Formats: sequence, structure tokens, C-alpha cells
Amino acid sequence: MKALVYNGPRDVSVNEVPDAKIERPTDVLVKITSTNICGSDLHMYEGRAGMQPGRILGHENLGVVIEVGPSVDRVKVGDRVCLPFNIGCGFCANCERGLTGYCLTVNPGFAGGAYGFSGMGPYSGGQAEFLRVPYGDFNCLLLPRDAQEKENDYVMLSDIFPTGYHATELAGVQPGDSVVVYGAGPVGLMAVCSAILKGASQVMVVDTHEDRLKLAEKLGAIAINNTEGEGVDKIMELTGGKGADRGCECVGYQCCNMHREEVPNLTMNNLVQTVKATGRIGVVGVFLPEDPGAADKLARKGQIAFDFGQFWLKGQSMGTGQANVKSYNRQLSRLIEHDKVKPSWIVSHELPLTEAPNAYANFDQRKPGWTKVVLKPGK
Amino acid sequence: MKALVYNGPRDVSVNEVPDAKIERPTDVLVKITSTNICGSDLHMYEGRAGMQPGRILGHENLGVVIEVGPSVDRVKVGDRVCLPFNIGCGFCANCERGLTGYCLTVNPGFAGGAYGFSGMGPYSGGQAEFLRVPYGDFNCLLLPRDAQEKENDYVMLSDIFPTGYHATELAGVQPGDSVVVYGAGPVGLMAVCSAILKGASQVMVVDTHEDRLKLAEKLGAIAINNTEGEGVDKIMELTGGKGADRGCECVGYQCCNMHREEVPNLTMNNLVQTVKATGRIGVVGVFLPEDPGAADKLARKGQIAFDFGQFWLKGQSMGTGQANVKSYNRQLSRLIEHDKVKPSWIVSHELPLTEAPNAYANFDQRKPGWTKVVLKPGK
Amino acid sequence: MKALVYNGPRDVSVNEVPDAKIERPTDVLVKITSTNICGSDLHMYEGRAGMQPGRILGHENLGVVIEVGPSVDRVKVGDRVCLPFNIGCGFCANCERGLTGYCLTVNPGFAGGAYGFSGMGPYSGGQAEFLRVPYGDFNCLLLPRDAQEKENDYVMLSDIFPTGYHATELAGVQPGDSVVVYGAGPVGLMAVCSAILKGASQVMVVDTHEDRLKLAEKLGAIAINNTEGEGVDKIMELTGGKGADRGCECVGYQCCNMHREEVPNLTMNNLVQTVKATGRIGVVGVFLPEDPGAADKLARKGQIAFDFGQFWLKGQSMGTGQANVKSYNRQLSRLIEHDKVKPSWIVSHELPLTEAPNAYANFDQRKPGWTKVVLKPGK
Amino acid sequence: MKALVYNGPRDVSVNEVPDAKIERPTDVLVKITSTNICGSDLHMYEGRAGMQPGRILGHENLGVVIEVGPSVDRVKVGDRVCLPFNIGCGFCANCERGLTGYCLTVNPGFAGGAYGFSGMGPYSGGQAEFLRVPYGDFNCLLLPRDAQEKENDYVMLSDIFPTGYHATELAGVQPGDSVVVYGAGPVGLMAVCSAILKGASQVMVVDTHEDRLKLAEKLGAIAINNTEGEGVDKIMELTGGKGADRGCECVGYQCCNMHREEVPNLTMNNLVQTVKATGRIGVVGVFLPEDPGAADKLARKGQIAFDFGQFWLKGQSMGTGQANVKSYNRQLSRLIEHDKVKPSWIVSHELPLTEAPNAYANFDQRKPGWTKVVLKPGK
Repeated sequence: MKALVYNGPRDVSVNEVPDAKIERPTDVLVKITSTNICGSDLHMYEGRAGMQPGRILGHENLGVVIEVGPSVDRVKVGDRVCLPFNIGCGFCANCERGLTGYCLTVNPGFAGGAYGFSGMGPYSGGQAEFLRVPYGDFNCLLLPRDAQEKENDYVMLSDIFPTGYHATELAGVQPGDSVVVYGAGPVGLMAVCSAILKGASQVMVVDTHEDRLKLAEKLGAIAINNTEGEGVDKIMELTGGKGADRGCECVGYQCCNMHREEVPNLTMNNLVQTVKATGRIGVVGVFLPEDPGAADKLARKGQIAFDFGQFWLKGQSMGTGQANVKSYNRQLSRLIEHDKVKPSWIVSHELPLTEAPNAYANFDQRKPGWTKVVLKPGK
Repeated sequence: MKALVYNGPRDVSVNEVPDAKIERPTDVLVKITSTNICGSDLHMYEGRAGMQPGRILGHENLGVVIEVGPSVDRVKVGDRVCLPFNIGCGFCANCERGLTGYCLTVNPGFAGGAYGFSGMGPYSGGQAEFLRVPYGDFNCLLLPRDAQEKENDYVMLSDIFPTGYHATELAGVQPGDSVVVYGAGPVGLMAVCSAILKGASQVMVVDTHEDRLKLAEKLGAIAINNTEGEGVDKIMELTGGKGADRGCECVGYQCCNMHREEVPNLTMNNLVQTVKATGRIGVVGVFLPEDPGAADKLARKGQIAFDFGQFWLKGQSMGTGQANVKSYNRQLSRLIEHDKVKPSWIVSHELPLTEAPNAYANFDQRKPGWTKVVLKPGK
Repeated sequence: MKALVYNGPRDVSVNEVPDAKIERPTDVLVKITSTNICGSDLHMYEGRAGMQPGRILGHENLGVVIEVGPSVDRVKVGDRVCLPFNIGCGFCANCERGLTGYCLTVNPGFAGGAYGFSGMGPYSGGQAEFLRVPYGDFNCLLLPRDAQEKENDYVMLSDIFPTGYHATELAGVQPGDSVVVYGAGPVGLMAVCSAILKGASQVMVVDTHEDRLKLAEKLGAIAINNTEGEGVDKIMELTGGKGADRGCECVGYQCCNMHREEVPNLTMNNLVQTVKATGRIGVVGVFLPEDPGAADKLARKGQIAFDFGQFWLKGQSMGTGQANVKSYNRQLSRLIEHDKVKPSWIVSHELPLTEAPNAYANFDQRKPGWTKVVLKPGK
Repeated sequence: MKALVYNGPRDVSVNEVPDAKIERPTDVLVKITSTNICGSDLHMYEGRAGMQPGRILGHENLGVVIEVGPSVDRVKVGDRVCLPFNIGCGFCANCERGLTGYCLTVNPGFAGGAYGFSGMGPYSGGQAEFLRVPYGDFNCLLLPRDAQEKENDYVMLSDIFPTGYHATELAGVQPGDSVVVYGAGPVGLMAVCSAILKGASQVMVVDTHEDRLKLAEKLGAIAINNTEGEGVDKIMELTGGKGADRGCECVGYQCCNMHREEVPNLTMNNLVQTVKATGRIGVVGVFLPEDPGAADKLARKGQIAFDFGQFWLKGQSMGTGQANVKSYNRQLSRLIEHDKVKPSWIVSHELPLTEAPNAYANFDQRKPGWTKVVLKPGK
């Protein structure tokens, strides 16, 4: 089959590789019809995340089931399914409580596994013609009848929509709340969309890219361009000096100051400052336990100089980590089915798999307008 | 009246001062019968927290109502009442949601007020014969009939019992959980007691003082002496390599390594390491937004070098801040009333007010056996 | 002052009565500018609820503060305030946990008090020129700068908006849920609005009045006309045979079958049937502990023949009772302020106080188009 | 193999039947070493629940794995496992949220399945030498090293301990609460034990059997003998006239008045009366959707004459249904492992399988001292 293979830093290509196939009786084999490029693919693409050359990328996958293992009960050949980026077993101590992002089975010795991801187990990614899905009955989200027609909506359930939603869950967003979202990339925009969906009264979003802020405004958010570092003051003003009720971190370890220098603690400390006393913060932007190539000394050891005294004095709380996609994708799919949300508004490019290398290059350079790429391996 | 007055670093004395009195129609005047010295009194005593000379200390207070303002409805003269250390108005946005530790009224421009506390408003402390209690109907906890007999139990409801309990609330302790508590001072011991009360299956407590660890063991905890820095390994072993489900920080910014040097990030980073992936951490130990006299460079600005990458990768969450005493004191008082808990086991010394200066000196030096001092102004 | 007085069954008149005034130091005196007629006013109007002749009706009130008692701190003369229909003290065991609809102070011997309400204490209603507000600092919701301009929106925060919202809280509505609301009266419509606000994927509303169902459709709900008793089948069909995730009871004890006969258990048993196994039901429609004039034998004793076996087998749960308005009104006011909701769409009639008797008669007869009346005492 | 077979009303026998065996690749085969007789077995034994003759009873099972299907990953031959009485698939909409008592897969067209249970699917019971466990990786609770030694403790995790615990979860028991439990049968006693474990301040238990009340007292509860119908008054007195914070229904549809007549609404209406306004009620006693043989006319249709008016006026809430055993058994097993609870105190008889018919007869007659029977098929 054809697949997008990682060769080394900023070098990917579409190669002919052995077909994905059923390996265990609980597996399902999916013919991929849509697979997105994700911001976290860029971490690997840039060579900063220790990805092994030769592996297939792609963890935002949707397709049609073409074969099921002998012990698969629920999923049938012909079903159109969306796959959570994180892989769960369904029966470990974490999966049974819905913490499927921290499965203790699929990647022994570590909590969590994913497709095509460095450090998340041996599972191949879905930027390919076919994908092997372990524990198929547990991991496949069966899509409703309008699945094909709304495929670019449903594919967002594999990662960024649940991840943005997770930010608002970790932050505890309630109807009427004011919410500040740092980062207007795809995940940040989905956090904006989720906060609005939950009935927030004010959603403010901070970024430096005008094209992304424009998208946020279309969703109903208040866009705050932080190019000159004026974001903090603006948020305080908009909230009557109190700070927002809730804050979402959708940037991660590569956050930059106005001079485009990486300042890893910048977003977190701004959040402490711009979220009210007793407020909650949800952090879904990726932070690394070590980052040997970082300029910042603390960052190399996975540390940030965190305003902990202020955080404590304000009695704030914080939740972090990757989204447990399965905890959200079923409910969110119903919102797509009943036309309450339409996450495909984020798609800027729909391309065949063969154009993936070019798409990676453009996305990596944050070229204006390259918000979200959906690859269509079948085309 | 007689009161314990702060004169300057490590200098307090019992002076004759003007009587506390009713100042506003919602006030209640209490004759103090029990008032504790708290670990956070030592922060002020040591001159590190910016306390103004001349102020009366004491925020753990219990006594008998001797006068009520004209608009007080519920509290009557003769009632024995315990006062939460934090003062709330009862009607601001925070108090109405139970966040009484972050009252927006009593200390304008800041969230939170307390008796005899630097930075927490102009309210005099209760290490004195009399105490003025603002918003008396809201702040007084009326005690049951056995109040006098169990006075050393009920006085713990003013601060340390709810504060220890708050640590377990912030950490989300559920029946069956394993819990690690860092710090076996009075608050840590109350956290141990609270975790056991909530049905934890394993409660581990880490400290370097043998006398305190002994008390923890009596409560049913597993004591871990960390003098040689072996605490982390021990916790991992006791939890089968997974880490504890929940962690409680009851040490604060003055945490020390095995060489008795202050290492402000030590406890927090140990918590990240010894709490399981997806686990929660409750932080009630005090951290300062700035600490100009600190040896550590980051600490001076109120920062710690926090293992944020590891914290994020493990998908941990954290709650912080002072306890909203009123959210817990009523329920906890019922446990004392029905003989389910007896927090007076922590009292090591019961002394007249006049001996307070000496008690402060001994407590400040962490003299063995000086676990908790209750002052009896009437005696 | 002029006030709407209850004289006896279906007999109210606007009389000259003694002015409302400050009676206790914690009182606030409000000049009423908007006051609604509520469906529960009709229970009293119809003579079925034991209202005492001579009392002033009206519990949905908004106005301008013209005097404050000597111990009122927060509320100032000139503030425009909305008053929750239920009166709380702010310091009892229920108020301190936010259960202000069950205050233990304001109506001794009973949990709960309200303005102008039979069995809810001696408090006069606000369908009058002036209203005395007890515990003013606690009970007044201060309105934002746009209060006067959006007065017909904010006045809905006194009761029906929080009450409809409460139905969805009791039912546990989450983003993505399907929700069925029984009753498209003002409260039912506000429940519809609240469910949509919270991100429900399907909101179905069952009623027999076409004009009300039309309003529900405008909000985005699926209207189900139950005139021929076909509602149950329709809901099951719309939910793929499973039943709705959540159900809201917004009808109360006077629910009728298709022959317009009162069948008090009809709505509740339909809910059990049309809510899924493990689903939750919120009941805000009023049920009486006794109803001596009822046709139904069980209803006279306050009982219904409830399908408890089915309810248990399906593992359903249920929350009931009047809304704790103060738990919601602050957050909901922010949604009005930021133009996210506009509850004044429900107002069908804006009338001077003098026309109240006529309005009661029309509303009582459920005349088409008489959805919600706002009285303007000042005009 | 030998198994306890239901022949008809009050007629069971130990017969030779075909061996249980692996039927699907996800199955596990268990050699049963402990299997309890449950109160709900009596519903079937008495012929009131429509059990089909020829079926094997027994849903409280523990044993050793002797064979695993080809797609079983986690469970190994030789593992000692406890089986939740309800069978889940692990991947349906209910199982994935922890609602394993309402699995949508194992008993098509109905929510929920169980071993040896009328109306709960075709699964044979475990009062036999061997048991087939569907979806073995999901349903088996792996027991710790002390499993054999504490087998009579761990076997209670199959049903009654989690079910009693579920009552306290549904009722929302929190530390400090007062709790009233109706019914001191095995489930009621486990509810008492769970309420104490959770830190309740007062646990009252109402029954008419002195031997059961004695057991409750040993656990630390206040026993209330209701033989003369004085229970309600006693509870009100013990709670200062307010009623208990929380109520647990552990009796079910066969509740009797003091004259030993079945009065199906008695317990529920007593709960409404003796639980405080705003209190919560958890109902785990079984109620039937129809009961054709009942004396009570409403009961035949599965209805009770419920004090709904009072329930609503008090703003109470209620949760019902069978326990989702898997939601609790892991945490509760840790409490057994760490010697915090010892549920085997309830065992009154430990008998070989061959004595099961005699045990059923004695248990059915509620003979004093026959509290709980554990059958040991291997002996």
C-alpha cells in the first residue's frame, strides 16, 4: 500500500510499504478515506520528538471497515468509522474509567498509546491506504448515516475537536463563564468552538496570526492579537479587572514571545495572571519531559519557571494532558449529526495522499491559510 | 484586654491593648476561650511575611459570644462558636458559591481575608481575650451541646482540620484510593486523618521528624522517613511501581532537602514523580508570590522550576490554595459530635495566653514534641 | 401604594395599601419597575393553593433600590436589581451550600420562603409599587449597565429562566444529549432554551398548545403536539427507540390527558417511558403534598400512581423541586449582558399594573397568545 | 458438572448437567470455588420472577481461571477472579461510561445482563462447578495475592458489597452526613458498612429482625427496630426533627408493614418522610415493572402510590437501579487487600454445593441466623 513515511527531520515521502493487515483476533482493518495532518505531527516532522525513520505517520483517521478479526462483535465490514488518535484496550484500570488516553495495556510500561506517534507504541499511522485498528470493537466510533456526506466534519472527532473540547472540560467551562483560550491553531479554535457550544458568555482567544484570529472571530470569539504582548492587559480589561473564569492552554512548549523566541513558561504564567482567583486552567498543548535541543536551560530538563506562588495565592487549579477521545467523540458526533456544529469549517486544504510531503512543508512553515489539511488516500 | 502582639521578627509579647468591640451592626463579639498557634503564624513571626508591628496575631479561634450587633439574627449571646480563620461576607460572587477563602468584600482589591494575618485585611487576631467577628451570622459556627467538653477538638475546625481535609478534597480522594501526604506537621496529620476518614486504602506520609511520623502511624498511616531522600523509592515500591492515586502537599515554600537546605520545588516535583498518571494533587502548603529573602533565585520572584513536561505527560491535575473553611466545618463538627474523629490528639501543649511568647519560640525551633499549642486566654 | 391584592378564587384587584418599607436593618426597599405574572400565581388565583385573602401577589420582580437598611453594605440606592422569587438568609445550612430555595431561616419550621406565595412565609409580593427585600445584600442581583434597556430580559432571572434552567440541571443535560421537555409553558420554553444553551443535540418539546409549540420551534426545538396522545411514540421514533437521554417535567400536578381531564401521574409515567435506561429526569412542575379538591383519589393525599418498577428497572434517577435561583442568576445574567440569550422573546404582553386583574383572567384561561405578561407598576 | 438447577417454585436440586465451556474467543472458563446465595435468588426461587425451569442459578461468583479463549489478553489460566453479577461487553454506549449494569450488547433489546437471572439473558449461573464468563478480559476482576486466604471477603465483591455501596453512591453520602438505611439484610448491611467507610457521622438502620440489627450495631450503626412501626419517629428524633441527609432503600417490592403484609409503597414513603428537604435517596432494593401475583392492585402493574407531592415540596432527589459492579469492585478490593474492610463478617454459613437446596429453603424462610450462605462447589 501507499503510505506517508518519516525519513528524518523535515523529510517525509509517500512510499510503497507492506499492507496493513489483521494481526490479532480483536483487530479491525480500515481503508482510510480521510486522514489529517496534525500540529503534533510537526513535532515529529521537525525531528524534535525522537521519531524513528521508516515509520508511518498519521493519527487523525477515518475510513471504511474492510475486514474484522474473528472475535470482533460490533463492528461490521462496510461500517464507516472514526478512530480516536489514542488506542485503548477497554479493560485496564484506566480505560474502564474512561481514561483511554492513558491505557495501560497497549504500550506496556507507559500510560497511553497512539497511531504513528513517537513514544506511544509500535502502531503505524493512518496517512496510508489502510490502517490496522487494535481492539476494534472498543476503538471504532460507528458513524451515522450521513457519515460520507459529512466526512470532513466527522474526521475531526479523531483528535482536534475532542482535544479542544478536553481543554474546556479540564478548565471546567460552565454556561455563563468567561473563557480565555491561548492559541488559535486548530486545537485552540476547537476549544473556542467548544466553549461557545457549552454556553460561555465571553470567549477570548489570544494569538499572533491574523488569519487564525479571523477564524476565531467568525465563530463568535473576541480575537486578541498579542503581537505586541498586549494580550494580558486586554483580557483584564475585558473582564473588568478580574481575569477570566477559565483558561485554556492550546499552544504547548514551543510558545514564543513577541520577538519569536521560544519562552516555554510564557503561556502558563500569562494564564495564571489572566485567570481569576479560584479559576481553572486546562492544558492540552504538548509539553515535553525533556527537550535536549531547547535553548532554555530549564526546558532541556522538561521544567518551566512557573509562577507557583501566584497560582497558589489565587487558589487556582489545573488539569492537563492529552484528551481521552472516546470520552467525548460519541456525544460530539451527535452534534454533527443534528447539525449543531460543523467542524469542517477548519479545513483549508483537501489533498490526495501523494501531496502530503508538500503539505507538511507548508504547514510546518505556518504559511498563511494552511490551517488544516485533510488527506484523501483513496483519491 | 490582653493580647499577643507582633513587635518584629521573632519578637512577640502579651500586651494590654484596647478592647475588641462591635464596630458594625453585623458584628459579633467573642470572648476567646481557645486559640491555637499555627504554622503560618511562624511565617509572620519569622519576619518573612511582611507583618506590621503592633498587630495582634491568631486566626484559629473559639469562644463564647458576649455581644451581638443589632442586625445579627442567628447568633445569640452565650453561644459557643468556632470561627473559620478566613472571613467571608456571605454575599459576594465567591462566598455565595462556598469559596469563602476568596471573599471579594472583606479585603477590597484582593480575594480573601483573615484574622491576624499579613496581607489579609485589617482584622485583629484572636490570641487575645476578645475578638471582633465581622458578618457574625455568616462566620460563626454554632457548636453542639458538647462544645465545652470537646473544646480542644472543635477549635481545630478553625483551620487545620478543614485545611488538611481541603488537601484531600483538592486531590479528589475517594474510598479505596492510595494517598501520599508530604509533610507530617499539624496540617499534614489532619490530611492523613481526612484521607483515612474518607476510606483511603493506603495513606503514606513523608517527613523527616520522627515524632510527627509516630503520630501519623498512630492514625493508621504508613510513615516514611525521608531523611536520606529515600521517600520517592519507598512510595513507588508501596504502590507497585505505579505511584499513588492522590497526593497532598502540606509543606509549602520552605521545604528542605536532606541537607536542611530550602529547595522550593522539591516537594512539588516529588509529587509529580510519585503520583500516578491521571492522578490528582492537592496543595495546601503555603507558597509566596514573591520571597525577596529567599536563597533560590526563582523563589525570590515566587517561581519554582516545575517538572511541567512530566506533569503534562502523566495527565495529572492539581488544585491549590487556602481552605474554604466554611465549606467543611459544619460536616466535620458532626463527626466530632458523634465521636467519629477526635482531632485534639494533636494537641501537645495547653497554655495560658501569657506563655504565648515562649510557646512561639519553641514551636519556631520545631522542638521535638511541640506539635500543636492551644492557648487559653481566660486562664 | 398600589398593589395587586388577592381577594378570593379568581378575584384579584388593584388596591391602595400601606407602603412597603424597611423593617429590619438588613432590608432593602425596591421601587418595582417590572413584575411578571407566573403560572404558579394561577394556582393561588384559582383558589386551589390556600392563599389568604388580602395578600399581595407577585414573585417575579425587578426594580430600583430607593432605600437600604443600616447594615446593608453592598447594595446602594439607585442600583437596578432583580430579586430571586425565593428569599434566603445567606447563612443557614442550606443557603451556605447554595440551596437558597430551601432557606431554613426566613419561614421558620419550613424549608423555603418566597414573595407573595401561599405557604412560603409572610412576605408581600411585588405586583405593587414597592417591595421590601429581606437580607438585601444576599438577595439582590445587581444588574449590569444595560439593565434598563434589557429590563424585560433581566426580569426573567427572577424565576422562569432559572427555573427552566434548573430542570436541565436536575436532569443533568450535557453537550450532545437528547432532551425531552414536557410542557411548553413559560418554564418549559425556558428549559428548552437552557438545553439548547448547554449544547443539547436534540431538544423535543411536548405540549397540546400550538402557539406555544411554535415558540419552541423558533428556539430550535422539535415540537411534538400531543393532542392525540401520540407524543410517546414520536419521542421513541426520534431517539431510535432508545428514549431521550434526559427528561424535564415542566407541567406539574394539573397535567391533563387528551380529553382535558387531569391525570396527575401522566407526565411522570410518560417520562419514565420516554427517557432511556440510566437517564435522568428533572421535575420543576409543581406537585402538591395534598390537594383536597382533586378529582383523583390519590392526588387528594398528594400521591401519584407512579411506574416505580419500570423506573427502577431502567435505573433512572430524578431530581425535583423549586429552583435555587441564586445558584444560576449571576451566570445567566452574563449571558444576557453579552447578548447570548434574550429571554424577553417570551413576553407577549407588557401592561400597567392596573390591568393586572384582566391579565390574570386571560392568562388563567390560557387564551392563545397570552404566553407571558410583564406588569409595569410605574406606568 | 454438578449445578444447582431451578425446577419450579421452591424446588431446586443439584443435578449433573453439561459442562460449561468456552463458546466464543473472548470467553474465559472459571472453576468456581465460592458462590453465594443472594436475596434476589429468592425472588426466582419463590416462582415470582418468571425463571425458566432447568436453568442454573447463581450470580455471586468467584473462582480460578482454567481456560481462556484465543482473544483473551489480560486474564491467564490460574488467575483467581471475582465476577461481577452483571455482564458487560466493554464497548457499548453504556459500558464505556461505566454503566455496566445496563450493557446494551449482552442481552439484545434490553439494558443489562447477568448470570443465572430471569430476564437478564441466557447466561448460566455459577452455583455449579464451572462458569463461562463472556468478555473475560472486561468482566474478570483479578484478585491480589491474598485472594485465597480472604476468599469469603472477595466473593462479596460480586454483588452485595458493591450493591450496598451503590446505594450510598446514589444517595450521595459524604463525610459527616447522617444516613438512614431501610433494610438490614445483606445488602442493607453492606450499605451500612459503606456509609461508615465513607465517613458518615450517623448511620441508622431500620428493620424488624433482631439478629440483623445486632449485626448492624456491631458495624457501628444505630439499630432501629421497626416492629411496632416506630421507626419514623425515632429517625426524626435522632436527627433533631430534620430527617437524615441521605436515605438508602435496601428492601424492595416485598416490604411489609408491622402486620407482615406486603405494602409496596411503605419504604419509599417512609424515606420521603425521614429524609430532609434537599436530601437524596438511593434505591437498590428490587422493584418489578409488573407483579401479576401481588395483592396490591397498583403493584400488579408495577406502580406504587408514591408521596410525590411531599417528595417534590422537599426538593428531594433519587437514584435507582442495580449496581454497576465494575465501577466499584476494583477500589473496594483494595480496601479488602489493605485490611480496611472485611465483608466476610456477613457469612453465616459455608456449605458444599450439595447442601444448596436445604440452604435455599432455610434462607427463604428467613430463619434466624441464616444471613448469608457461601457455597463451595469444589468441596
